[in-house]
Order: sequence, then C-alpha cells, then structure tokens
Amino acid sequence: MKLEVNKRSNHVILASHTSLKHSDALPIQWGAKDPMVRGPVIASLTNSKARNAIGTHSGSYAVYRALSIASGKFSPTHIPDLHNTQSPIQLGPYPQWADAKKMVSIDPWGLDPQINFKPLFEKGYDIRPSIAVTQAHLQIPEIHQAIEAGRLKIDGNIVKENKDVKITKVALEPVWYLPGIAQRLGVDEGDLRRTLFQETGGMYAELITRPDLKVWLPPIGSTTVYIFGNPLDLAKPEIELTCRVHDKCNGSDVFGSDICTCRPYLMYGIEDAARTAQRNGVGIIAYYRKEGRALGEVTKFLVYNARKRQVGGDTAATYFRRTECVAGVEDARFQELMPDILHFFGIQKIHNLHSMSNMKYDAIVGSGIDVINRISIPEGLIPQDAQVEMEAKKAAGYLNIDEKKKTVEDLKQVKGRKIE
Amino acid sequence: MKLEVNKRSNHVILASHTSLKHSDALPIQWGAKDPMVRGPVIASLTNSKARNAIGTHSGSYAVYRALSIASGKFSPTHIPDLHNTQSPIQLGPYPQWADAKKMVSIDPWGLDPQINFKPLFEKGYDIRPSIAVTQAHLQIPEIHQAIEAGRLKIDGNIVKENKDVKITKVALEPVWYLPGIAQRLGVDEGDLRRTLFQETGGMYAELITRPDLKVWLPPIGSTTVYIFGNPLDLAKPEIELTCRVHDKCNGSDVFGSDICTCRPYLMYGIEDAARTAQRNGVGIIAYYRKEGRALGEVTKFLVYNARKRQVGGDTAATYFRRTECVAGVEDARFQELMPDILHFFGIQKIHNLHSMSNMKYDAIVGSGIDVINRISIPEGLIPQDAQVEMEAKKAAGYLNIDEKKKTVEDLKQVKGRKIE
Repeated sequence: MKLEVNKRSNHVILASHTSLKHSDALPIQWGAKDPMVRGPVIASLTNSKARNAIGTHSGSYAVYRALSIASGKFSPTHIPDLHNTQSPIQLGPYPQWADAKKMVSIDPWGLDPQINFKPLFEKGYDIRPSIAVTQAHLQIPEIHQAIEAGRLKIDGNIVKENKDVKITKVALEPVWYLPGIAQRLGVDEGDLRRTLFQETGGMYAELITRPDLKVWLPPIGSTTVYIFGNPLDLAKPEIELTCRVHDKCNGSDVFGSDICTCRPYLMYGIEDAARTAQRNGVGIIAYYRKEGRALGEVTKFLVYNARKRQVGGDTAATYFRRTECVAGVEDARFQELMPDILHFFGIQKIHNLHSMSNMKYDAIVGSGIDVINRISIPEGLIPQDAQVEMEAKKAAGYLNIDEKKKTVEDLKQVKGRKIE
Repeated sequence: MKLEVNKRSNHVILASHTSLKHSDALPIQWGAKDPMVRGPVIASLTNSKARNAIGTHSGSYAVYRALSIASGKFSPTHIPDLHNTQSPIQLGPYPQWADAKKMVSIDPWGLDPQINFKPLFEKGYDIRPSIAVTQAHLQIPEIHQAIEAGRLKIDGNIVKENKDVKITKVALEPVWYLPGIAQRLGVDEGDLRRTLFQETGGMYAELITRPDLKVWLPPIGSTTVYIFGNPLDLAKPEIELTCRVHDKCNGSDVFGSDICTCRPYLMYGIEDAARTAQRNGVGIIAYYRKEGRALGEVTKFLVYNARKRQVGGDTAATYFRRTECVAGVEDARFQELMPDILHFFGIQKIHNLHSMSNMKYDAIVGSGIDVINRISIPEGLIPQDAQVEMEAKKAAGYLNIDEKKKTVEDLKQVKGRKIE
C-alpha cells in the first residue's frame, strides 16, 4: 500500500493496486494441509513488503500498540523473541485444519508459527502468533462451594487438595478469511467487503482496494478456551466431552449482576467440565468476546432502562422487542462463526452441551459436530431478576425442558425489578 | 468522504478534502460549557453528510454491526428509539466537563444526547449515546464471604438482607479528541495521527485525509464504572470516597487464575467501596478494557510460557523483562488517559485509592485529583503463584508498605510454578 503525503496541499492519496504486490509477500492458500503450502499470515508491520493480510495483530489492542509507538515508548521495529513461548502440548494438526470451510474466523497455523514456519523465520520474515496455549490453576468460589456441597470431589489431579482446578487455556485472536466469512453468511464477498468498509465508517481501505488480500485481522476481541483434562482428548469422539460456549457478560461474569444468568451458567459449566474430566472425559469452556449480544455495553444499559420503565414493567413478553427498538437487531453475535473454535481442537462430538440457545445448537450441529445431550441451567441457580430473561428465551424457542409452553399472558406475569 | 469505485480497473480512490465538508456537519468545540455550543459528536452512518467524527459507535462492536448489515439481518437506516433509555440519575454537568484538557478519551455529552441535544434530534440529526447509566443488584460470592466473616454488614440499603449489593453502573465508550490525546502524550497531533494510521496497518484513512475532524471513535473496548452509594456524592470532596481503578484480566476476574492478584484485589475494592457507602461515603470501581497491560491475551500467554520455562524458573527478578522480550514494551495501558473517567463524575479527591500502581497514582494526582490514602491488597488475599507478580511490582517501584527493599538475590528466590 502506497501512501503519499503532499504537505503543501494537505491532500493524501491512498492507492493500492494488486500489481504493486511485492514479491516478498507470500501467497496464502487457505485450507492447504501443509503449513508451508498454506503460507503464513503476515500482518506484522516491520516490513510492509511482506504483508499478505489486511489489519494487524492483537485485535483491538493494535490501537494501543500504535499509541505506544506514537508516544515513543515502543520501537516500531521490535520483533518478538518467541523463545520458550511455545505451547506445552502438541495440538493438531487435525483434518479440520485442512478443510477451508471449517475455520474462517481463526488461523489454526497461528499457533507456534516459529515452529511450523521455521524456514521462513530463518529468512527473516516477521510472523506473529495469533494463538497461544498455557496452563493455569483456577481458584473459584463457586467451585469451592460445589466441593463443600459434595457435588465435586477432590481427586488430586483435576481438582487439587487445596480446591484449585488445573486447566489448559488457549487464547485465539481473530483472523478472518473473507471469502469463507462471506460464504458462511451466504453473501457475495465483494458486497461483504464494501459493507464492512462503509458501515464501520471507513475502517481499512484495503478491504476495497486490495481484493487480492483475502485475510483480514479485525480489531475485535479474542476468544479464550479453558480445557479440563487432556486437550488431545477433545478430538476423540469416543471420549465423553462436556462443552459450554459462553458469550461474555461483564456485568454478570465479573460483577454478579442478578438480572441475568451468565455467571451462574458459566460456573455450572466449569463444575461439570471438571467432573467430566475426573471420570476420564474432557471438558471445554469457550469464552467469546461478544458483550451484550455483540451490541456493546452502552446499548445493553440503554435497553435495561427501557425494559424497566415500560408500561407494564419489565416482562418476558417484551424482552427481545426492547433490544430491537434500541439496537435495531435482537442479536448480532453471529453464532455461525462460533464453531470454528471447536473445529480447531478437532472436536467431532459433544456429549454434553451446556447451552439453552437454539442458535448455538444449530450452528454447532450445522457445522458437522454431533451433540448428544443439551444441558439447561438448573432452576436453583437462576437469580430472581433473571426470570424475565429465562422465560423470554424459552418462549422464543430456546431449549425448554418444561413441556408446557407459556402464553403471552403468562409471560406478562414474569416481571423484573423497576428502576429505583 | 468520497468513495469512488471504478469496477473496470478495480482501482479505488479515497479522496477527502476539508472543502468537501458538508454544511450539515456541525462543528465540535471540545470543552465548551453549553452542549449546544460544544456540538454533538455524530459518528452515526445513516446520513454521511452530518458526520463530524472519524469511526463509529460501540467500539469494536462496530465490526459486528457491519457484519449484521452485510448479512441482511440489520437495516443500515435503523435509528435507535431512545425512549425511556435515559439515566436514572442526573449526572453533571461538572466544571471538569467544561475543561478541554480534563477529558480527551470520552465525551461527557455522550450521556442522554436525546435530552441535551433535543433541538437537533427534532431537526433529524442521528445522534447516538456513548455513555449509559443503569442500576443493578450484585450477587458476589466473595462479598457473601465478607458478610459471613463479619467484615461487611447487612444494612438493608447498600447491602440487602439477601446479601445483594445495590449499585449504579455506567458504561462509557471511547471518544478520542485527537489534539487532546496528542497533548496528553506530549506529541504532535499530525505525528500521532500518522502513526495511528500506519501502525494499525491502515485503519481509518480519515486520520490522514481529514485533519479537520478532531474526534475519533476507535474500535477498542469500553469502560464500566460501578458506584456504591449516591453517584452525585462523587463530586463532593468533603464526602469520603473509596476508589479502585482496575484493568481487566479475564483469566483472574472471571476464571480465578492463581498466577495474579486481579480478582482478589477487585473484590476487596468492592467490599471496601460498599463499606464506605454504608458509612455515608461513596465508592467507585472503574473497570478498564486493557487486557494483559493492553497487549492482549495471546501475548500474555506467550509471556507466561517464557516466564515458566526460563533458566532459574519464574522469578520476580525477571518478571517485566519477559514481557518486554515478547511484546517490546512492558506496559501499553496509558494510565495517562485513565483519569478522564474520574473527571466525568466530578471527582476532586480520593480518600482511599485501592491501587499499588505508581503509574496509576501519578496519572491521577497529575490530573489534579488529590489522593489521601493508598491501599494495598491484604497479604492474605494474594494467591501463592501470584507472589512473583507482587514482589516484581514492589521492586519496580509499585507501592510497598513493607519498608525493607528486596535485593535482586531476594527476588530470584520468589519463584512461581513450572509448566506441568
């Protein structure tokens, strides 16, 4: 991409042609089995001639990196020392890694590129990881409670004597293969790119000017995965697998807000994942950064206010409508992209899926993964003010073990707390 | 901004001149006291002629909004129905709102624009909130434990009979006044804009082509503030104020990872904020989206691995160096921008600051807010594997109530767990 600045007129032309593509830039063949044939995703900025993707690493944190450079705190030519950063376990490659359609929102070869693209590192290419794996011990009050209540045992391996839970955790940053995203959504790639550019107010001109660059690293949040038991067992369909897919809700996950069931459901998923690992199965929790159904917290709080002030109070009957009035859409989470994370681990079958969401279920099963049992949140874990959320979701088609379907009049009776 | 697409050659020119600025676009006079003189920030996309800022709303979630439009699920012409979404309390305006230097990373007039810019709404301008205020009740296990241990009482108001904690919460999305950001960092505005553009791989050409547009809504995370007691008391220096400023750490805040002190410190801050409100003071917790010192989780996990594998083990002596080797910088959080959030609430004095960070303290005091007491995390709350973090920070100049300064040899003895 060529940037000319004409200081006299303050007029800048951004021009980028496919013919200007440099010979240093390596082609990417999405879905190729051999990583060296697939090619590395190079979104680093130390050598613009080698770039073969739009955007850069670390999602939203790219902005803070740029700020660091602007302030002089950070050298723009710094190349990471990846010595000793590699994963403690050898994940993959799985057949899904060689299927261009299975993963379009992450790059499986973004894990330990210093190993998989070693010859290119030796040639001086600046290739950055977009996936990292490490280990941890978790100290969670709800898990301590589950142990004290006898629901979870101390086994000395998964659950330690001091009640810590041993896990492996994986961070995955977004790498979007645009033709694949377009196909997943059932739209034309050119229309997708044009809309992404225009409807973000002009983010990344290369979405338009470089149709040859098929990969974009968007400035959105990463996904974190917590694994209980042997991560390599995730790919074995004969081993019992318990899974919760969770979209973050800061107000509940961190601060325990009683208007929703998010943290209780997450904690129950963790408990069950640990139990499954203790009986030689494997557990996985996938935590996505899609706050407020991917509408963000400002919209979320505006909707809460509108719900609590409406005539008739905050009822299950109007739960989704209030989001739609403020935001224009009920849900922007794109569960269609969610199963990519599961495919990265080679998952073929989920024995116990902790989710009430028909959208999540459909996306998982539609992507080719079998689901045996669907687990709802136990009634006793639902906070009082979250009954509105629960009843509204059940009425909208979310999983409802309770067979008797409620009427609109019933739903009007399920009321939340007012503004104080 | 004019976008021409020449389909035949696939060549696109993005040209934007200040002379093309439309008469519908209202000027912004940052720091003006009267909101109608200050002007609304218009980053919505339903009428491009009225735009007076770069980027668009909801931070990173702008990408999901664009995806929703591309997929046909969302109408690009939808205008939010803001009926009944207004704040339950009347915050501000405070003198700090009329000081162009006090807030450069948020827009105080982003709260309830439908009230403050009513005449413009009536003229058809599409102005969106960037701040929202609502209420909640929190159910937190550590708070229940504090009550059971007698450290926190049930008073029926702040802490309810059922141990819920009543709070007001505020979501603030980023709105950057670029000349102010430049000045805060001590750099030239043109250099800042050029670096932001280039070092994000070309995000938002208007950073270069529209030097007349001084406001940018970057695609980063929002900030959430939790208030215990009367939010209007925050602006009264004679009322005791307890404050924790917290940079998010998903691994600890949600999942309880024992390698760091984040959640324990946050919970202790919440406990103390509630106690302060009970004795007629006010408490505030400000939660920033700066994961892994604003380097992101992939870098964070890579650093964990390098720390745990190094010769000599994971010690306090090498804690910061490992981040620097991988990331190139120890810390990209820019605490210089953090006090803006405090100024929004009119804060002049903090009686109890829950933070050990010299960077946070310096930023707060440097911005003109007095700090009386600095509160460290109690020893008993520090997880075992987090001793490495604690000792490293104390040695680096973080607040250390322990007067005897440790030597490098001492720091090598503080060791963390290895990779299993």
